[in-house]
Amino acid sequence: MKMKIAQIQLAASADADANLCAVSDAMDALDAQRPDLVALGEMFCCPYDTACFPAYAEPEGGGTWRALGGLAARHGVLLSAGTAPELGADGRVYNTAYVFGPDGAMLAKHRKMHLFDVDIRGGQRFRESDTLTAGDAVTVFDTAFGPMGLCVCFDIRFPELARLMALRGARVVLVPASFNGTSGPAHWELCFRARAVDNQCWYVGTSGALDTRAGYHAWGHSIVVSPWGDVAAQMDEKPGVQVTEIDLAAVDDVRAQLPLLSARRTDVYRIDTFS
Amino acid sequence: MKMKIAQIQLAASADADANLCAVSDAMDALDAQRPDLVALGEMFCCPYDTACFPAYAEPEGGGTWRALGGLAARHGVLLSAGTAPELGADGRVYNTAYVFGPDGAMLAKHRKMHLFDVDIRGGQRFRESDTLTAGDAVTVFDTAFGPMGLCVCFDIRFPELARLMALRGARVVLVPASFNGTSGPAHWELCFRARAVDNQCWYVGTSGALDTRAGYHAWGHSIVVSPWGDVAAQMDEKPGVQVTEIDLAAVDDVRAQLPLLSARRTDVYRIDTFS
Repeated sequence: MKMKIAQIQLAASADADANLCAVSDAMDALDAQRPDLVALGEMFCCPYDTACFPAYAEPEGGGTWRALGGLAARHGVLLSAGTAPELGADGRVYNTAYVFGPDGAMLAKHRKMHLFDVDIRGGQRFRESDTLTAGDAVTVFDTAFGPMGLCVCFDIRFPELARLMALRGARVVLVPASFNGTSGPAHWELCFRARAVDNQCWYVGTSGALDTRAGYHAWGHSIVVSPWGDVAAQMDEKPGVQVTEIDLAAVDDVRAQLPLLSARRTDVYRIDTFS
Repeated sequence: MKMKIAQIQLAASADADANLCAVSDAMDALDAQRPDLVALGEMFCCPYDTACFPAYAEPEGGGTWRALGGLAARHGVLLSAGTAPELGADGRVYNTAYVFGPDGAMLAKHRKMHLFDVDIRGGQRFRESDTLTAGDAVTVFDTAFGPMGLCVCFDIRFPELARLMALRGARVVLVPASFNGTSGPAHWELCFRARAVDNQCWYVGTSGALDTRAGYHAWGHSIVVSPWGDVAAQMDEKPGVQVTEIDLAAVDDVRAQLPLLSARRTDVYRIDTFS
């Protein structure tokens, strides 16, 4: 089965409504290409700044969430709606990825499980945990195109989570993300290729675009990687869209030729999970 | 602390004595550069052919093993002696990596844990399990340069094993290996870089050289990768040696700036091991 993916790589402004409008406009422009899945980047709706996350946070079911479900329904697509700051029922703020079905109903949500707290000499310093709380669930969900996994940016650094998603059946993994000018050139493509090859899944990484006036300099480079580790498509750092048709049969094909998942030594090691 | 690594990339012939002599000659020639560690490739001592493994197998303590210990002592180096077919006390044959200390004593052995059984369309077909038995132990051992991990070729495909070695303290991981003309260009550098970045260890992959007359076409490309994922050195496919000085302090440095190991969500997942 083929699936046409449209990735929308935008630079978020401080105007939440304008950010949603930019997504809506981009989806309108994409209709002629009839994508099956539209994907947005991490924190597409507000500046990537720890101080902004509580200020822009809305509960699940809030205005941004409803608008995103409406966009999915209006265009009749799967919408991997990037991430948005979510105000939990517990009063805490999460970096949450939502996915909506073509009927507008929410299919999945994933709260970023590994918060981005780094201090790279001469490079990026960022502490998401200043204002965000981490989620604790592995997220795999069913779609008309088969089961998909969902994680957020720094989550991709952890092979355990990628493995758990594959073992729970994920064949495509959606990753709203935002690497930066340090981690991007060093590790962006590497991380996506490695997870794809190890787990023999399609990986779809969607980033915000670079805005040199912003506090955080997103790497962009939204990417699609095949289960063999080939980069099927990759953008540069600028705003734009990228449409890629993938063949889901490649998953079974690669797994049959190079049986990695079944060659794991589960008599020697096992990944247990408590979620 | 700095460590100078010399990788010897040779094409193994059917003459086991000649293969050992070639290693000895290469180590003589390397003395002037005073390496701390000398590394050989997978099955450096016999053709990479499932039929050869039982024919060339010797028990631990056999002639090849004693010769290798003698070479380590004579040159006063750590010797990661590639792998050799080992005839186990159980009568089975293993693809075994030995490491000897500068005094000639064996420091570690690792029996390849994941056997290479693949059938890539238009590419490589190989079934190690036709004649080999898999080991079942994770191998980390102490040296004067700190704890090191040891695994063999296809083992590097499995992030669980790499993680277990890092969690047991490995800061340098030695990988005698032999990718081929299909897996090499597709995944060799990717696998080494990914394990190094995920686990923030130095990775040292040493291969045999390409012999186009041989049944198995080794990829060569012996490689050293830093804990940040930079390729510190990489050969081509031809026979030769590569000397690389690495700084072991890079491990702590990278781990402090980008704390991946401590950011694992051990409250959500955990790799258990039975070895």
